[in-house]
Amino acid sequence: MQRQLHIEKLFSGDRRTIARTITMVENSADGSEELLSEIFKKTGNAYRIGITGPPGAGKSTLTNKLALTYRKKNLRVAIIAVDPTSPFTGGALLGDRVRMSESENDEGIFIRSMASRGSLGGLSKKTREAADILDAAGYDIILFETVGVGQSELDIAGAADTTIVVLVPESGDGIQAMKAGLMEIADFFVMNKSDRPGAEQAVMSIKMILGFRPHDEHSWLADVVKTTASEGKGIEDVASLIEKHQQFLSRSGEFEKRRAARMKLRIEEIVQDKFKTDFWNSEHTKKLLSGIEQILKKEKSPYELADELLRK
Amino acid sequence: MQRQLHIEKLFSGDRRTIARTITMVENSADGSEELLSEIFKKTGNAYRIGITGPPGAGKSTLTNKLALTYRKKNLRVAIIAVDPTSPFTGGALLGDRVRMSESENDEGIFIRSMASRGSLGGLSKKTREAADILDAAGYDIILFETVGVGQSELDIAGAADTTIVVLVPESGDGIQAMKAGLMEIADFFVMNKSDRPGAEQAVMSIKMILGFRPHDEHSWLADVVKTTASEGKGIEDVASLIEKHQQFLSRSGEFEKRRAARMKLRIEEIVQDKFKTDFWNSEHTKKLLSGIEQILKKEKSPYELADELLRK
Repeated sequence: MQRQLHIEKLFSGDRRTIARTITMVENSADGSEELLSEIFKKTGNAYRIGITGPPGAGKSTLTNKLALTYRKKNLRVAIIAVDPTSPFTGGALLGDRVRMSESENDEGIFIRSMASRGSLGGLSKKTREAADILDAAGYDIILFETVGVGQSELDIAGAADTTIVVLVPESGDGIQAMKAGLMEIADFFVMNKSDRPGAEQAVMSIKMILGFRPHDEHSWLADVVKTTASEGKGIEDVASLIEKHQQFLSRSGEFEKRRAARMKLRIEEIVQDKFKTDFWNSEHTKKLLSGIEQILKKEKSPYELADELLRK
Repeated sequence: MQRQLHIEKLFSGDRRTIARTITMVENSADGSEELLSEIFKKTGNAYRIGITGPPGAGKSTLTNKLALTYRKKNLRVAIIAVDPTSPFTGGALLGDRVRMSESENDEGIFIRSMASRGSLGGLSKKTREAADILDAAGYDIILFETVGVGQSELDIAGAADTTIVVLVPESGDGIQAMKAGLMEIADFFVMNKSDRPGAEQAVMSIKMILGFRPHDEHSWLADVVKTTASEGKGIEDVASLIEKHQQFLSRSGEFEKRRAARMKLRIEEIVQDKFKTDFWNSEHTKKLLSGIEQILKKEKSPYELADELLRK
């Protein structure tokens, strides 16, 4: 397909074109960067929401129900489900998104899974790029969903305007959440499966810890919303709090500040990535391989070889 | 402390010097790279063992018991416990290593925790460098221990000569392990807490899947060892299998091949890291910040700015 036609079809929201473009980006296909660069001017309209939390907290169900809530408001919704524990496959993994089938014939919902294990930090870059594609294609809401382990939830928080941490009563112990670093990234918490025993106590324990966060009358106060996503309970409350947070961000000027900070990280990542691609040409790779032999004989240290490679 | 004296004290195994040197590396302190480069010639003697698996599998207990087994053979042992879910603190986190106190007065054991959440891929580099310091300081065995979530177990497998995946009967379903990508990195499995119900079945299920891996009479056959680490049961078997694997690696020439492949990745990482440090000088940073303003006004795409920065 010719570039211009490709871009037109993308802007018109053609689903096959969107899917193909995300695959191009996932595979770092030739021309994908030029395409991303060209569509960039059409991005920035979608509101980006990150949903993370421990395994089994019901993130997929919550994400799906939230998507349906937005659909009722006639907003177009895209879901990007990131699985950091699955090997990078270069394609979509449907997994438990099959449950979403109630809306699979709905043109206003687009669902994409991205698997990235072993892609060495490329996750956040590709996730943002997929979001840009969906943003340019006219989706109003982009929901990122990922299990909160290690680095992945930081990547998501770094890509989202509002980040929601989903807990369940069993995982909900505030101390645990704090220990796992989830407190720092949550704009608010959802206590899912809140019909289970211990929910009230778990909510209280998180509220208590949130109360200790430094804040004044101008700052955002994170809260805890109770849901039973499987029954659709509390989903409207989640949507309201997202809206409230969005209004806070605009009013306070935080919105622009956050997007600028994220853009800085993003550019650093692009620079790093471009350098890597350009640097490892055949000459440098050859020099690297012969250098390794010297290193294994202890004639040189890895740092000396790196310096030699970079000096050229 | 003067460089030469520092290095001499490190080579003599002085514990305070080792601890200080690792802290220098963790903080990327001035001169740390030159130091690593200089001590490199004394590395390569320690055997490096990675121990990973899901949370709650008893990795710390197994690691500690294994360390004590090596101590009985009069080998000097270092443990590097990597916690990918804790924020990077720049220092040691003791956590559940307190249990190790039975050996805290033993000069032949050195324990170091490294936390790295948010350090953006710097984990594997710093872990290897800490191992180099311990290797140069005369430790015979280096045990890396990390929870297997996301990227961290790949980092560990990339730093170790032998990688052990620890499972428990509840997590031990072979399909789960395969799904999580643990099959590809395990040189062998340990079924810990094997006094629990379901242990035998879990072992069988892993053995069955292992049987499907392509192999011939020259290749290493991964196996499953049963332990109850809390009672010290099966630890000798783990040590024997590590030794058997070590012998296999030397005999087959795999040992050199693996170390060369790891060195390649390591140098790529050092080059990347050096580039990053050098590139973001005040001029580039200034250009980045003014470029972001243009990007937010959609006058430029992030890719165009990255190209401009790199072209200079």
